Amino acid sequence: MGEAAPKAAQAQDSAAPHRIGAAIDFRTEPSRYRHWKLGVDKEIATLTMDVDEKAPLLGGYELKLNSYDLGVDIELADAIERLRFEHPEVAVIILKSGKDRVFCAGANIRMLAGATHAHKVNFCKFTNETRNSIEDASANSGQKYVCVVNGTAAGGGYELALACDHIMLVDDGSAAVSLPELPLLAVLPGTGGLTRVTDKRKVRRDYADVFCTTEEGVKGKRAVDWRLVDEMMPRSKLDEAVEKRAKEIAARQNGKPEQGIALTPVERKRSANSNEYKFVSVAFERDNRLATITLRGPESAPPSSVQEMVQQGAAFWPLQLARELDDAILDIRLNELEVATIVFKSDGDTQRVLAYDAFLDVNATHWLAREIRLKWRRVLKRVDMTSRSLVTLIEPGSCFAGTLAELIFAADRSYMLIGTMQGDNRAPASLVLNDASFSGVYAMSNGLSRLATRFLGEPRSLETAKAVIGRPLDAEQAHELGLVTFALDDIDWDDEVRLFLEERASFSPDGLTGMEANLRFAGPETMETKIFARLTAWQNWIFQRPNAVGPEGALTRYGSGQKPNFDLKRV
Amino acid sequence: MGEAAPKAAQAQDSAAPHRIGAAIDFRTEPSRYRHWKLGVDKEIATLTMDVDEKAPLLGGYELKLNSYDLGVDIELADAIERLRFEHPEVAVIILKSGKDRVFCAGANIRMLAGATHAHKVNFCKFTNETRNSIEDASANSGQKYVCVVNGTAAGGGYELALACDHIMLVDDGSAAVSLPELPLLAVLPGTGGLTRVTDKRKVRRDYADVFCTTEEGVKGKRAVDWRLVDEMMPRSKLDEAVEKRAKEIAARQNGKPEQGIALTPVERKRSANSNEYKFVSVAFERDNRLATITLRGPESAPPSSVQEMVQQGAAFWPLQLARELDDAILDIRLNELEVATIVFKSDGDTQRVLAYDAFLDVNATHWLAREIRLKWRRVLKRVDMTSRSLVTLIEPGSCFAGTLAELIFAADRSYMLIGTMQGDNRAPASLVLNDASFSGVYAMSNGLSRLATRFLGEPRSLETAKAVIGRPLDAEQAHELGLVTFALDDIDWDDEVRLFLEERASFSPDGLTGMEANLRFAGPETMETKIFARLTAWQNWIFQRPNAVGPEGALTRYGSGQKPNFDLKRV
Repeated sequence: MGEAAPKAAQAQDSAAPHRIGAAIDFRTEPSRYRHWKLGVDKEIATLTMDVDEKAPLLGGYELKLNSYDLGVDIELADAIERLRFEHPEVAVIILKSGKDRVFCAGANIRMLAGATHAHKVNFCKFTNETRNSIEDASANSGQKYVCVVNGTAAGGGYELALACDHIMLVDDGSAAVSLPELPLLAVLPGTGGLTRVTDKRKVRRDYADVFCTTEEGVKGKRAVDWRLVDEMMPRSKLDEAVEKRAKEIAARQNGKPEQGIALTPVERKRSANSNEYKFVSVAFERDNRLATITLRGPESAPPSSVQEMVQQGAAFWPLQLARELDDAILDIRLNELEVATIVFKSDGDTQRVLAYDAFLDVNATHWLAREIRLKWRRVLKRVDMTSRSLVTLIEPGSCFAGTLAELIFAADRSYMLIGTMQGDNRAPASLVLNDASFSGVYAMSNGLSRLATRFLGEPRSLETAKAVIGRPLDAEQAHELGLVTFALDDIDWDDEVRLFLEERASFSPDGLTGMEANLRFAGPETMETKIFARLTAWQNWIFQRPNAVGPEGALTRYGSGQKPNFDLKRV
Repeated sequence: MGEAAPKAAQAQDSAAPHRIGAAIDFRTEPSRYRHWKLGVDKEIATLTMDVDEKAPLLGGYELKLNSYDLGVDIELADAIERLRFEHPEVAVIILKSGKDRVFCAGANIRMLAGATHAHKVNFCKFTNETRNSIEDASANSGQKYVCVVNGTAAGGGYELALACDHIMLVDDGSAAVSLPELPLLAVLPGTGGLTRVTDKRKVRRDYADVFCTTEEGVKGKRAVDWRLVDEMMPRSKLDEAVEKRAKEIAARQNGKPEQGIALTPVERKRSANSNEYKFVSVAFERDNRLATITLRGPESAPPSSVQEMVQQGAAFWPLQLARELDDAILDIRLNELEVATIVFKSDGDTQRVLAYDAFLDVNATHWLAREIRLKWRRVLKRVDMTSRSLVTLIEPGSCFAGTLAELIFAADRSYMLIGTMQGDNRAPASLVLNDASFSGVYAMSNGLSRLATRFLGEPRSLETAKAVIGRPLDAEQAHELGLVTFALDDIDWDDEVRLFLEERASFSPDGLTGMEANLRFAGPETMETKIFARLTAWQNWIFQRPNAVGPEGALTRYGSGQKPNFDLKRV
């Protein structure tokens, strides 16, 4: 949070990674990183943030003092993911800065000041998902994050530390942690900071109030006393202390696999109106504000052994499909802002899909099977958090079974065709449940399975659905069981679906976003739902208010030498 | 949600109740109601909504079709409160419409379109608190609400029904419940509708999606099947069915007291810079954007018996103080928009305050003692939900003990003076805890006591604090125990407090609102916190977006014959 005034926009095409023309690309790999270095030494990895100030994603600013933009975070997300799949032997990740006496200055202010409202919101959403993935790796993959704060950790810099398991602060009279967003910029820490301060580190609320209103932050003993960091040490003892702590924590993680798989690049063929992956197709009808995502089932039976699964690696169907779907969703979020509705379809052999699920289930304790299901859980959560209307169409030829059936329950509504379409000789659609929809393996961010959330008010329906696990259900049965919203025959199908999609495109995009954010998450709340609902919604409100983004607002005037001019009414 | 285009603004002074000049007044009583009728027949009361369309609060619109504004809701809140105190014998309240074939058209659209952002937000907050008070009366006072939907219940009309225990819908082919805000106005149902649909009535999320996007709503059997209402009956059977149901429910409530107390008017003397009540003073320093609320302790010892308490009635110190504080807070919220910070002080005899708490505790099962504590719980929640910075100053002469100590823990921070001020011969301040801060009797909306929330991260501190119940704590002890934020001596006091208040006034009001809404509610979430956080924050965002309130937005263009023009980007 302290880079100097921006230079003029740089020539973008060469300088900015993660962009293809105007589009943002989420695919990367360590050899292409501009901002991070990933080193692995047996069970301990080091993830070093060393932001290249000359390589901003959007242009018009420099990424000074390890400040970041979406491009920086795309690399971080990739590194976290690779550590799980490519380096499962790693038990501890030391997250540190490559700059002297600066940990990280947070999200780049010039970038925020210049970005559209939509970009700010999408940027925060992705960075939140990335922070959550750190906590997910810690909780579920035995990869613990130790954060080394060697200097200023401001705003998003401290929020990155908050996502880690253990925060070590240099005690040199100047290194400090801070959340200066409110006093400096009139906005909130946008990446979970307030929630993690109160709910993860359980900082007392009055201290949290003091902390969040103190621009220069808190250092030394007070930072430890207030539980803002876990320990502090003189600079001269830092390296030694970090090594000791990392080894201690690593010693507590055991049963690590020895070797990972390579996450080979996700191949994508982009044309004017489509994105083609091996198992995923995205078709855009931009005039109708639609994106249709079709997921294809596996081409062959599952492998006969875990060795074979490991050998297939990134080409193993469930993993490749998950990565392709993830990329497709992110692409729509950032590059297709006017798409109102995402339509999910599938195409394949239902029994073969179930066979893969059964394979993962039988081998659930194998590290790769576990990681693949955790990946699916994260991708499905990404779908839940996507602020587009979601509808799933279940038609002849589809394979919504087991894991893929979650896309029915993640959707705002679903339509299933009764019987067949005239002239189509494929069998009527069927839907098959398996244990994955009940066990919590794909829990939503509220901690419940999608079906448990769906049937909050009718627990007996949940039991009834459980009783039909494995049984192919036709449209009328699925409707009767409450698994789909509408079952329609071919006479009504086209009109009803078309009317729904047209209606959706006619509504206010903002209203829909707010409505869906409320209707999708019934039941309990967790730190994750708090971050995405309470915190994010307030931040979005503030990102829209003149006091932050108006011509005289704090974000606009930052660095101009002029003070912001606030509307003083408290609302 | 269907009143016709508005007439020109009416002359206000005579037509509008609840206003004194420009200020909104929350004090009312049944004889002054313009919009509601309250009838009591032994254990069954009838609350009839019959809105006087010629008596809007703000002017510029008519309250057609039982649509409402803040003025209508002020009367409803008063009636709910009076039923608890004046008619504790009532077990069932039949909430119905006085209009033919219209239940309630919801919040008046013209009022919303013309109101400032601040008024919209405050209006929704108060109506939410009122709906919560219905559920509070049901849960804690055995007063159950039966809602009779005799025609259209649209938007806020249906949200009012949702706050009730039992919803009865006429089945006549036209009576329907609906939440048409999104399709009609591009905003959200602002009074808990989405949350109560998913979390109270547990409507399946895809049905909720269909319901909330269907302008005309849902009627008849589908409304029952989807759990939107509890039962339906033909119009010819309505009266009989309601009577039967009310008697059934009443029969389940027993042990009701026979007679209540009169809630005599809250007396208030308003001058240019103050509001004076008997036990509360509010002093405004508008140049500094400050309101100081001083609460005064009791003038005499508590009564010697519950009979005497009943005899004192509304003049019984704890009750009178609670009502005065409630009015003071509401007045600041609606009429003093530029006040940045509320300072709480107190003045009185600590031991006498504790004696009143002890009296209420000993008589906790007496209906009036119970109602008074429930009232305090609601008032304290109203404080928590007030979007102003809150600070409590504990000085010599103060009486922050027991119930009043909750105002220390409700504040964003607190300052306690060590020793005395030069020239002041009063004893140093002391703070005394009693069981009220631990028992949950004053639980916050997250379901925890303020101290349990405060000490989420240090359960031992909670135990340590419990161990000093009844012991007067000086500033250093209180600070050591984590009960106050800062303990300062008289050399630092004035400067530190002044600097804090100046700093607070310098920050962005919106940023503070968002920050405080996040820091105040650590720990678990409930339907209430969901409504005030997730739902309200999203609604506030939408209330700010051009798609709703811009010159071509849906709210602005409603009734003009012109369609809204939306920015199509999904954010």
